[in-house]
Amino acid sequence: MSDIKEWQILSSREIFRTGFFSLKSDQCQLPDGRVMPNYYVFGFTNWVQTVPLTIDGQLILVRQYRHAIKKITLEFPGGGATSSNQIDVESCALRELREETGFHSDNIELIGRHYPNPASHDNELFTFLALDCEKKFEQKLDPFEDIEVVLMTPKKLFDLVQSGEINHSLVVASLFYALKHLKLT
Amino acid sequence: MSDIKEWQILSSREIFRTGFFSLKSDQCQLPDGRVMPNYYVFGFTNWVQTVPLTIDGQLILVRQYRHAIKKITLEFPGGGATSSNQIDVESCALRELREETGFHSDNIELIGRHYPNPASHDNELFTFLALDCEKKFEQKLDPFEDIEVVLMTPKKLFDLVQSGEINHSLVVASLFYALKHLKLT
Repeated sequence: MSDIKEWQILSSREIFRTGFFSLKSDQCQLPDGRVMPNYYVFGFTNWVQTVPLTIDGQLILVRQYRHAIKKITLEFPGGGATSSNQIDVESCALRELREETGFHSDNIELIGRHYPNPASHDNELFTFLALDCEKKFEQKLDPFEDIEVVLMTPKKLFDLVQSGEINHSLVVASLFYALKHLKLT
Repeated sequence: MSDIKEWQILSSREIFRTGFFSLKSDQCQLPDGRVMPNYYVFGFTNWVQTVPLTIDGQLILVRQYRHAIKKITLEFPGGGATSSNQIDVESCALRELREETGFHSDNIELIGRHYPNPASHDNELFTFLALDCEKKFEQKLDPFEDIEVVLMTPKKLFDLVQSGEINHSLVVASLFYALKHLKLT
């Protein structure tokens, strides 16, 4: 039996807010009475990420520039979800897949629900596996998105994780769920 | 050949700073001249996380309350690193392992370098694998840390990821590197 217990919020102060995220500081009381004066919490919408496979077994990735790390990354398609209702979240995953890559799947399944950073972020990431993907649309990118679609075999992807060329933690986490789900090694 | 290119920073404005992180907004110019007026970047120190195995093959995890998601999590030990020099980072990983669990390893190896969130965070996460861990110390926790040490077999851990009881993205990512490194399935 665990002695770890929830904290109580004594007060909460918003520090910053944009359409994309918020930042607040909570004053919290621990179970034994200690008071944590400033616990910072980033508020985000939930996120979706999809591991998409084409009919002939190629993974679909997106290459883009990520300014926070000043590097070009290879990632699975994904983005924001405005709900945590599973059907809504699935349609968000399909929308992001379609907009970023032009691909569509009629065979999509939720394979993992996880928290990008439980210490500081309040949101959840839903990982989907989309099989039998077909290119049915043109890309439809946001004004500041420049995305190249890259197809590769699972073996190539594993090699790129191994070499460090694919190094996005959330992509690697989603890959774990896909690996377990598909019983790949 | 990829057409994706780096962005140039036109100006940068600090919005918030604590000892733990900073938040800034960069105005950026894209390669074709478009100007992104506000790109938010969270500045963090690098992080370390260790997948620790005892001599008899049990994984060492830490149970703690994570206020951002208001839940109790099971995670691998880890924390902040003040350097990206590999030797310094390894000693940070050993320090976090010792402080959070009391365990020590003389057989530790870097198995993954990844970015927790390339879209918004500037920092890197170093995943170590520590073998032959032995309990040599008492826990030495920070004032607001309450951590329980939990030992389990790799199979039990996989079951808890599968059931969703372990659901920390960065833990799952580190697990992927450990799995590949140890050739576990």
